[in-house]
Amino acid sequence: MKYLVGCDLGGTNIKAGVVDVEAGEVILSKSTPTLARELHDAVMARMADLINEVIGESGVDPELVLGIGVSAPGELDMENGLTLFLPNLPGQWHNVPLRDTLSKACGDRPVSMLNDVRAITLGEYTFGVGRGVDNMACYAIGTGIGGGIVVHGKLVLGIGGTGGELGHQTIDFNGPRCGCGNYGCVEAYASAPAIASMGVKAVQQGLTTKIAELCDYDLNKITPKLIAEAAEMGDEIANEIYRDAGEAIGTGIANTMVTISPRKVVLAGGVAAAGELLLAPIRDTIQKRVFIMPAEEVEVVVGELGSDAGILGMAEWASQQLDL
Amino acid sequence: MKYLVGCDLGGTNIKAGVVDVEAGEVILSKSTPTLARELHDAVMARMADLINEVIGESGVDPELVLGIGVSAPGELDMENGLTLFLPNLPGQWHNVPLRDTLSKACGDRPVSMLNDVRAITLGEYTFGVGRGVDNMACYAIGTGIGGGIVVHGKLVLGIGGTGGELGHQTIDFNGPRCGCGNYGCVEAYASAPAIASMGVKAVQQGLTTKIAELCDYDLNKITPKLIAEAAEMGDEIANEIYRDAGEAIGTGIANTMVTISPRKVVLAGGVAAAGELLLAPIRDTIQKRVFIMPAEEVEVVVGELGSDAGILGMAEWASQQLDL
Repeated sequence: MKYLVGCDLGGTNIKAGVVDVEAGEVILSKSTPTLARELHDAVMARMADLINEVIGESGVDPELVLGIGVSAPGELDMENGLTLFLPNLPGQWHNVPLRDTLSKACGDRPVSMLNDVRAITLGEYTFGVGRGVDNMACYAIGTGIGGGIVVHGKLVLGIGGTGGELGHQTIDFNGPRCGCGNYGCVEAYASAPAIASMGVKAVQQGLTTKIAELCDYDLNKITPKLIAEAAEMGDEIANEIYRDAGEAIGTGIANTMVTISPRKVVLAGGVAAAGELLLAPIRDTIQKRVFIMPAEEVEVVVGELGSDAGILGMAEWASQQLDL
Repeated sequence: MKYLVGCDLGGTNIKAGVVDVEAGEVILSKSTPTLARELHDAVMARMADLINEVIGESGVDPELVLGIGVSAPGELDMENGLTLFLPNLPGQWHNVPLRDTLSKACGDRPVSMLNDVRAITLGEYTFGVGRGVDNMACYAIGTGIGGGIVVHGKLVLGIGGTGGELGHQTIDFNGPRCGCGNYGCVEAYASAPAIASMGVKAVQQGLTTKIAELCDYDLNKITPKLIAEAAEMGDEIANEIYRDAGEAIGTGIANTMVTISPRKVVLAGGVAAAGELLLAPIRDTIQKRVFIMPAEEVEVVVGELGSDAGILGMAEWASQQLDL
């Protein structure tokens, strides 16, 4: 039996779980909020507590828990075990020795690190919708648009783990500025804030839309979820917003398809919960754009592991790094 | 010693060479024009003659020539050894059994097929500028813009060998129609015909440019090479044309960089002969667009094998397919 801990440091929550990697099963997982006021030392102390807690409560012999995988939303120095830039986390994460700090606080177990969406990619590839295919891509649509790719059955890291940043493909070289510094990235059109801001604009412009009623004319309440609700009530403006977002994501996916010619493309992240509302315009866009490879043989689907994908992926990653 | 034949069926010439795969050396190569009036049977007969000729004249014991790799510019059914769609070749190439026909005519040697730019990619990766890196991309800029990628040290085929069609990434989702059916592809901006047509337009508009003098006001004479000559004479319009083309190719490369995070990006094909004229705007574009990965660690260079890249790549491919 191979047990490993997968842990995800997120902008909202810290999550940790003990995973039976052979069975692809989370034995026990728990989460705790990432408190905005805390600095990195306090956050790491709570991460370690959470990890030790799930190990203790899982019922698994602690001796059999062989390692820990930790994902974080941003740039990491995987070689030296440091966080470099975690844009959506408070608490000064530049050059923080996350790997060694956690290892020391968690029974000297070896710790491996990975970007959070690469973790989801590996989770869905190993245990979820990607099982058994050679090439796969994952788009995680939330505060930003992250990604990950698997080629020849193996997660693609590239230089310093930066492979798979699919949200930062340019789809309009004259497009709007993206948070990354580039112009016309997929993320600039279809991240959760980009979708919400389309809803805000519609209400501000006084368009006839259910978004206005649903948010009670409080623009701060407009989220992709609220816009999806409006769309499901038949609201044309809300539908258009998802069509625009789906077109941007679909164009990014079309680029990924002509590049790695994958069998599956997986959508994850909060915005993917919109399901068909987003999938339909994505599929339309692919059909309109991809002629050079057999697009009809590529499945575009929402991931099946939900919020466990990252935990499972990190346990698998830790296992791979230890050559277990 | 491992000897294999690499053969390239091109729109202009057929080329074949006997290759010492261990040394990465072309022992002898020859070429013959692809005659526009010939149908596929006649072309295949001449391909076979050329292959048998180079084997005979190479001085290598024919018994030691273990297989043949043949590349073609378009879509292939690699499993069944058929050509499917070769847009730039005359002579009806739909569903033509290229593999078995050549094998029969060339001493029953096993024949492997591959897209022509994937062959160049593998050649540059194995024997050229790509030696020793994990991830690499190749853009071949000619009549169209083809491509190829290597990930985890292995050529990426994807579904039916369609991986690596980097010229058909969308860089402007409202852009002009591309030959493939999509809109706003890199190829629509920066293929040889696209570059030439920018030159034609400049002369037609009566702009003050050396292109007009160099072509003697005969628009049919305007080629990327002629425009490059004008640019090197300091012509501003000609320089602008290469800047525009370089920006489009650079945007495509930027997308490839955030996707596979390669160590090298190789330019090949006739237009790549423009060298710095094209490389400078490509590098500028990358610097303006790529922030999410360490762009400064990626080398963008012209391939070093020139017109031998495809022959070498196909010999290597044949060797890999035979598990030699």
